[in-house]
Amino acid sequence: MTSIADLYPTGTVTLREVGLRDGLQLVKRFPSTGAKTAWLMQEHAAGVRHFEVGSFLPASRMPQFADVRELIEETSRLGAFSSALALNERGAKDACDTRVDEIINVISATEEHSQANMRRSRAEAVELVRRSKALSQGAAHKPLVNAGIAMAFGCSIAGEVAPDEVLRLAEACLEAGADAIGVADTVGFAGPRQVAAVTEALVKLCGEVPVLVHLHDTRGMSIVNAAAAIDAGARALDGSLGGLGGCPFAPGATGNAVFEDLVFLCETMGIRTGIDLTALIEVRDILAREMPEEELHGALARSGPPPHVKWAA
Amino acid sequence: MTSIADLYPTGTVTLREVGLRDGLQLVKRFPSTGAKTAWLMQEHAAGVRHFEVGSFLPASRMPQFADVRELIEETSRLGAFSSALALNERGAKDACDTRVDEIINVISATEEHSQANMRRSRAEAVELVRRSKALSQGAAHKPLVNAGIAMAFGCSIAGEVAPDEVLRLAEACLEAGADAIGVADTVGFAGPRQVAAVTEALVKLCGEVPVLVHLHDTRGMSIVNAAAAIDAGARALDGSLGGLGGCPFAPGATGNAVFEDLVFLCETMGIRTGIDLTALIEVRDILAREMPEEELHGALARSGPPPHVKWAA
Repeated sequence: MTSIADLYPTGTVTLREVGLRDGLQLVKRFPSTGAKTAWLMQEHAAGVRHFEVGSFLPASRMPQFADVRELIEETSRLGAFSSALALNERGAKDACDTRVDEIINVISATEEHSQANMRRSRAEAVELVRRSKALSQGAAHKPLVNAGIAMAFGCSIAGEVAPDEVLRLAEACLEAGADAIGVADTVGFAGPRQVAAVTEALVKLCGEVPVLVHLHDTRGMSIVNAAAAIDAGARALDGSLGGLGGCPFAPGATGNAVFEDLVFLCETMGIRTGIDLTALIEVRDILAREMPEEELHGALARSGPPPHVKWAA
Repeated sequence: MTSIADLYPTGTVTLREVGLRDGLQLVKRFPSTGAKTAWLMQEHAAGVRHFEVGSFLPASRMPQFADVRELIEETSRLGAFSSALALNERGAKDACDTRVDEIINVISATEEHSQANMRRSRAEAVELVRRSKALSQGAAHKPLVNAGIAMAFGCSIAGEVAPDEVLRLAEACLEAGADAIGVADTVGFAGPRQVAAVTEALVKLCGEVPVLVHLHDTRGMSIVNAAAAIDAGARALDGSLGGLGGCPFAPGATGNAVFEDLVFLCETMGIRTGIDLTALIEVRDILAREMPEEELHGALARSGPPPHVKWAA
């Protein structure tokens, strides 16, 4: 049984590798379970401790996540933390039968996106949080429940999203028992002022409950938005190695915040990540080999860390 | 005769296109004067008002800047502002015979880099600022003198650079008559905390004299560093279309801050740039045609602005 203090320690910023889930959402070719395991193990050896490893969906719909249970086991064996998506009650039930540390439920910030993308209302999505929490309490490993609000900074369908709407949904998720609240700039609309304002208000609302910020680099703002989120009190940030993961609403656009660039940002801000950047960058070879069609992004992989900086090792 | 209030108005952030100078420093093929003029004119039509157009060096050494005088004339004809580098007294004299609005002198932050790169001491570089100012006062068009401190956030030779050293040099440049002070992250070592601290201290030291920040994206931090500089009171930021311009000390690395991404950042921060982002992005076609070997960077060119944002035009 994992506690919030284990998963998201206070006084630092946890960086979560989401490449194995969000990164694989749109790729043309799926890495083998062996390659995913090597990716996990090598990143773990480089110092990464928190992985989003897949989604509990029928393998017929999302074959790239058919091995989610094996990856949860592997993460657990390493002594690292795993999160996995559960988008319906069946998924939450299945997740509760594993040793996953965290179930992620997704709530759209707008009713339009919720209906179009998930064919359910936002209220129903909040009810899944409540149900996931109840299932978790009856489970052996008692995974934490993370409520992630998608399109929290702007919606591909509805356009602008009022911060008050995000806060209202977050409050409903807290009331339903969420252990952590996430906000996602799913389509890369946000700038640093908006991220700061929403994160600050959420941190105030959530009190002891950690706030996680999930950023995409669609418009090149993921790093500046990450800094704004950190300054506003976010406890965790998501990223993927090489920025793997596109955007279904902006074809050809860049994907998740680049994990290795987030590490560098944190280190320049005085946050010790414990991650060996050189070793981390080497893991990109696995992605390049397994998914040669995918463009990998990121500046650190091209430049390396500044030579005069004494790096974690 | 151009005033500081024209060139760097208070209450906003001026974005300067440096692609025609810094961007062309390392390229394998040089655009024709006609192509450069088209680049200038199209960016001007998109709303860009300030261009660094070249360097006053013997054309035998830097053939890509042989047409600097024509570009200064062209910029002036458009009613826009031009800056040009002058790295020695001969260059400053030549600049004073033109209608250039601003002469840029460069001072290395470290003695090691000054000697290795320019074969002169930092004190001699400061003296060139004094000499440039005297020459300007005797010239018809009286260009402003900008003292740009290179390697201000870390040096490719000496490693870490103490902020006090940068402040001491800035003070010497002010005493020598500089009308504006620039600081450059020449090799992309900086993070937002350092940029904020140095910029804030400089703005305090410089009083009415504008502080300019020149950022490279070598390690992916140019946008977050730009936001930090803006928040700390910088009056101007440099960037180049498509991030054109590499780094002589980090082969293969990305170059200048991407101009179009800086525009988007500013707009998200409530700074009205007056630049039509869609029209700006179209100018990249000229660069791609004239310099097919050069990789163009930037997220906005891939994604476009968010569809729901009402854009300047």
